[in-house]
Amino acid sequence: MLGSTHGTLTTHSRPARVVACGEQPPHTVHGMSEPHRDGGGQSAGPVDRDVSGRPLHAPVPDLDRFFRPESVAVIGASDSEGRPNTGITRQLIAWAERVGARLHPVNPGRTQVFGLPCHASVAALPEPVDLAVLLVGDPLPVIEQLAETKVKFAVAFASGFAETGERGAAAQERLAEAVARSGLRLLGPNTNLNAFEKFRTDLDGPAIALITQSGHQGRPVFSLQELGIRLSHWAPTGNEADLETADFLSYFATRPEVGAIAAYVEGLKDGRSFLLAADRAARNKVPIVAVKVGRTETGARTAASHTGKLTGADEVVDAAMRQFGVIRVDGLDELQDTAALLARARKPTAEGVAVYSISGGTGAHFSDLATAAGLRLPTLGAAKQAELHQWIPEYLHVANPVDNGGHPVGDWRGRKILDAILADPSIGILICPITGPFPPMSDKLAQDLVDAAEQTDKLVCVVWGSPVGTEDAYRRTLLGSSRVATFRTFANCITAVRGYLDHHRFVTGYRSPFDDAPRVLSPSARKAQALMRPGQQLSEHAAKQLLRAYGIRVPREQLVTSAAAAVRAASLVGYPVVMKASGPQLAHKTELGLVKVQLTSASQVRDAYRELTDIARYEDVPLDGVLVCQMIERGVEMVVGVTRDSLFGPTVTVGLGGVLVEVLRDVVVGVPPFGEDQARAMLDELRGRALLDGVRGAPPADLDALVEVVLRVQRMALELGDDLSELDINPLVVLPRGQGAVALDALAVCP
Amino acid sequence: MLGSTHGTLTTHSRPARVVACGEQPPHTVHGMSEPHRDGGGQSAGPVDRDVSGRPLHAPVPDLDRFFRPESVAVIGASDSEGRPNTGITRQLIAWAERVGARLHPVNPGRTQVFGLPCHASVAALPEPVDLAVLLVGDPLPVIEQLAETKVKFAVAFASGFAETGERGAAAQERLAEAVARSGLRLLGPNTNLNAFEKFRTDLDGPAIALITQSGHQGRPVFSLQELGIRLSHWAPTGNEADLETADFLSYFATRPEVGAIAAYVEGLKDGRSFLLAADRAARNKVPIVAVKVGRTETGARTAASHTGKLTGADEVVDAAMRQFGVIRVDGLDELQDTAALLARARKPTAEGVAVYSISGGTGAHFSDLATAAGLRLPTLGAAKQAELHQWIPEYLHVANPVDNGGHPVGDWRGRKILDAILADPSIGILICPITGPFPPMSDKLAQDLVDAAEQTDKLVCVVWGSPVGTEDAYRRTLLGSSRVATFRTFANCITAVRGYLDHHRFVTGYRSPFDDAPRVLSPSARKAQALMRPGQQLSEHAAKQLLRAYGIRVPREQLVTSAAAAVRAASLVGYPVVMKASGPQLAHKTELGLVKVQLTSASQVRDAYRELTDIARYEDVPLDGVLVCQMIERGVEMVVGVTRDSLFGPTVTVGLGGVLVEVLRDVVVGVPPFGEDQARAMLDELRGRALLDGVRGAPPADLDALVEVVLRVQRMALELGDDLSELDINPLVVLPRGQGAVALDALAVCP
Repeated sequence: MLGSTHGTLTTHSRPARVVACGEQPPHTVHGMSEPHRDGGGQSAGPVDRDVSGRPLHAPVPDLDRFFRPESVAVIGASDSEGRPNTGITRQLIAWAERVGARLHPVNPGRTQVFGLPCHASVAALPEPVDLAVLLVGDPLPVIEQLAETKVKFAVAFASGFAETGERGAAAQERLAEAVARSGLRLLGPNTNLNAFEKFRTDLDGPAIALITQSGHQGRPVFSLQELGIRLSHWAPTGNEADLETADFLSYFATRPEVGAIAAYVEGLKDGRSFLLAADRAARNKVPIVAVKVGRTETGARTAASHTGKLTGADEVVDAAMRQFGVIRVDGLDELQDTAALLARARKPTAEGVAVYSISGGTGAHFSDLATAAGLRLPTLGAAKQAELHQWIPEYLHVANPVDNGGHPVGDWRGRKILDAILADPSIGILICPITGPFPPMSDKLAQDLVDAAEQTDKLVCVVWGSPVGTEDAYRRTLLGSSRVATFRTFANCITAVRGYLDHHRFVTGYRSPFDDAPRVLSPSARKAQALMRPGQQLSEHAAKQLLRAYGIRVPREQLVTSAAAAVRAASLVGYPVVMKASGPQLAHKTELGLVKVQLTSASQVRDAYRELTDIARYEDVPLDGVLVCQMIERGVEMVVGVTRDSLFGPTVTVGLGGVLVEVLRDVVVGVPPFGEDQARAMLDELRGRALLDGVRGAPPADLDALVEVVLRVQRMALELGDDLSELDINPLVVLPRGQGAVALDALAVCP
Repeated sequence: MLGSTHGTLTTHSRPARVVACGEQPPHTVHGMSEPHRDGGGQSAGPVDRDVSGRPLHAPVPDLDRFFRPESVAVIGASDSEGRPNTGITRQLIAWAERVGARLHPVNPGRTQVFGLPCHASVAALPEPVDLAVLLVGDPLPVIEQLAETKVKFAVAFASGFAETGERGAAAQERLAEAVARSGLRLLGPNTNLNAFEKFRTDLDGPAIALITQSGHQGRPVFSLQELGIRLSHWAPTGNEADLETADFLSYFATRPEVGAIAAYVEGLKDGRSFLLAADRAARNKVPIVAVKVGRTETGARTAASHTGKLTGADEVVDAAMRQFGVIRVDGLDELQDTAALLARARKPTAEGVAVYSISGGTGAHFSDLATAAGLRLPTLGAAKQAELHQWIPEYLHVANPVDNGGHPVGDWRGRKILDAILADPSIGILICPITGPFPPMSDKLAQDLVDAAEQTDKLVCVVWGSPVGTEDAYRRTLLGSSRVATFRTFANCITAVRGYLDHHRFVTGYRSPFDDAPRVLSPSARKAQALMRPGQQLSEHAAKQLLRAYGIRVPREQLVTSAAAAVRAASLVGYPVVMKASGPQLAHKTELGLVKVQLTSASQVRDAYRELTDIARYEDVPLDGVLVCQMIERGVEMVVGVTRDSLFGPTVTVGLGGVLVEVLRDVVVGVPPFGEDQARAMLDELRGRALLDGVRGAPPADLDALVEVVLRVQRMALELGDDLSELDINPLVVLPRGQGAVALDALAVCP
């Protein structure tokens, strides 16, 4: 079980659009849940799709009876010594007792299993069951039998599906089809017992709900219960033939006991369902913390071969998570610590962090790392500093970080200092790093921190840096309190606190981009569709007409086929002009000498026409003519484009242009749908962002125009959908503020 | 004690050059040690300094009798209840017993202390002592008394020196002067008892030696002993009035029992002494792992106010550490884990890493992070994979990562698999991440790993990912073995293994740059010195003459003062030409319109001359003339410069040029002395390095010429020393391979 691998069919992982356009909305049989939290928000209606055909809304599956069934059937139950099913049956019986479910063993070969009456078949069950657990090698026939009954959920442990190769993948496809016909919801195949583990019920407060695509990888988060952190659910999604990560995300986001969702993700079944689930969580202000494998080619390949799921381009997954407020971390330890903090900490009263330590060195070191990570340490006011100096020697620094020099924590002053810091309105978070145990001080300090935390709304974090970790101050005092967030390393504390602040900033006033996503084709779309040439790369001129159809400015230009027409065009366009050879399949124009700039007279234009056509003939490049273009100068060169991602469909990229920056790859991705605010946020992520503000005396660039182009390109990408496989505006020259942006060159490819 | 702060005088932290030129080599009284490791390497000679006056060699202080004295005096010893000195005296007596030293209390008010005969004064001591521990409020008079005796070492705990402000700093300066006169070596003031802690003596193998500038920050590394990691020394350097971090680094690097040095550094007393100590460690193949505070302004400021030491520009410290093989980490947990691995692991037999796990998910996740961090996971050969499939089901992936699916670890197959992986010659390191305990599998797996590690020369690493950490498999089995390196997080394992490989790569065939550092002035220096104008910024023309003096190519150019001379110059230089206004204090030439390019005729030159001088008159810019320069095209624009660092003196920077890259700050620093290999390595660190290889059809740039310019600029920086406060070649155009590099513009400032 621990080592089980699982997978979905590669072929099952269809591009999102095909799913969205061609099929019924999947699995609405159980309708909507009626949870304490918002489970819907919009009417699902008969069709609620964006202009690309992708859903704008996903129903929240009601999984209450999956996690807390009233009656359970165990198909293939056994109590014979030495059979693997015997151990599983025993575990399920214990679990059913804990959750108060009636358990019915099913096995044609027995009349009793562990003293419970055993039934010969599903049809012989004494009552409709909520959940059927399938311990059989081939779940397919059982699913078909279960379809006859009113069973709501099934779990299939059997392996040998997509994770084993093509034949297994085909079997999984057949299983998925049977499930779709049956009306039940299936977890698995190739999942495990994690959902039926023994959860501690003696812990209070908001809980972590856990989703994993590999059981072993969830163990550390599950083990947090031993440190006093409450866990409410564990969904081991296995091969995801039916129920997928997104289903559990949106269900958990509606559960009142869930404070945060921790997810370990290797691949996604569908990009849009993931976005809709993250959107649900953001609307409900439930944080999602996720590890997503696939930072590297190696990781992506290994994960893909392990699960059969699509990993998607990592930068796109990363962007999608950022856009929808999912906090991505790299390690399982960060997943534990960040999810634990986010589950339990209240909304911050202020974003300022105070660092408090018994050593100036510790304070300096922690502050250094915290500031580098973007946390803000406000300087405490003079009055507050004077107050602190009542208890802390004058020569120590208390401006923040606050260094108490050690001794004051040994007596009554320790608590006074904590309360004084916590009372400062600029401070929302107090962090006390204790790098090593020194019982005369650290025991008392730990107790003071716990006591102070009990009496404040503010967040109190402690780092217990001892590598030993068996000390009483850590095990009993700190972990014994649910009001103190305890970490083992500076780095994890900082990552978690940053995630905490990011989450609350994100959800405050969150406006879902799905609410504003376009539902109907714009007039631009028809003009654009007429320009599409299936299987071809459009000529520069045609690509620019495409942009023009979407209201994106291009230089005044004319396509001409004679020198005389070129001269006429130049005087219409206005001198100086640029001339370029134009034709489909034409790339590397500059390298071939097929661009002439700064032409200022009719004779130069005539000469240029002759030269360009001569070169094209010599290089054997078919032309549809020569472009005579208005010359545009003095702006910031950007690139804006559309690429297709296997998980998310069309995505919009924007970055700095020019050869240097191409080498440095300063580009960001936007995953539709996104609105104006998010487009602006994308630009802020560019390393070279400052260029747009004007450097070396250049005027600030027209940011609004750039944002507008990005949004229009998004609209084009959604409306043209599969008809446009690639678009690249390079360069887009962003002129000084108020003057707009102009696409100087463009490349468009039709599939 | 825990919370003590400490500092050196800010005024005591002199620029390196002043120290080097103006004073005697400090503290050679105890001569050279005669350790097992190379303690010298070069003859110190009467003067062994580079052309800048900085030492090329530092003697290794013999600190044997400091850490293992035969006799100790405790000045201010006490056994009165309630006095702080009583506790300290008790601790020192216990320590003296452990190390076998005779302890002599000194206190005029007593005849006995804890039953030991007490002496009235230092003069009354019955024998010369190796070490005097000063428990007095003012150590100065005692130092003066000790100077009369043959005492080798003193330790001063007293605080109230540089860490308290200006008056304390002055007191520390007086103390330092007294120490320098005395011939003894002092640790402190404002240090603590860390050097006299109770070290475990039952642990075998190479040890960690620890240096800290803040006692509390060393506690986690010290606590490693509780996890079975041996620690040999702890040097809490306090205010460093005399003995500094570098002294302990070079001493520990000569001790045979030391496997690695762990250092927590807030500031350095002197840059050169640090480099020489790191060089000593590199020659002796002893790894240094260091946390250095100062990543951010906040951290640097806080650390400086805490210790009074100079932090130096962080990018410069970072470069210095990289150049000399010091492994810099951010967290104390990384310091622990990396130092522990480096202390104990043997030299790698191969750099390939095999990842082995009981879960495909864990293997995928770990491999993803490891690859992203630069570790190499070789694909196992077909024969090896077939061998592994004897024990691992066929459908699981064993190419590396090796996924065993879980079950094989439960029986005899588990050990077979480990041995088979370890036998592969491409593999030097086996890493087994175990994310959660599952005793039926993980207990056996842990034991197998320990057993396999005992029988291989290769490195075996285990990650025990459970946040609980009290499990027997972890506490007893894994930590019980000194042959297995055990970590708690993926990240720390990866950081440590990368540090381990980096270290061994670095020290293999290490050639000290001090061996090749220039000792005498070059002929260039005299030419250059004649051009210096104290207190001025040189004109472009003069700055270029400076470059020419060092053999750095500049465009053919003439400085002219009439239009007619300009025309004559242009025909000598060759058309097309560039013309620029030239004058001292002239900056922003382009913005002011004081540059004219692509001039192709005498009349254009004449017009340009008039225009430039008109603008200069209008803008009220004094000129020394107009430069008529050869026009250089088609190369990669770089910047090369010299800046002065408060710790390290002159440093050389090199980066990509052009306005975009200035915004992106793609620049690296070299700290002299560095050789050709290191100059090449600097270029490899540029993010936009690929530009030099030729992109978009451009030819590869003349890398050799660029490296040569960097080395010549280094030579200039060292030879001109304090006479040159800043140099900026921008742009340096690097032409295609074989054609050299040309400095198009330069700025030089004399202090």
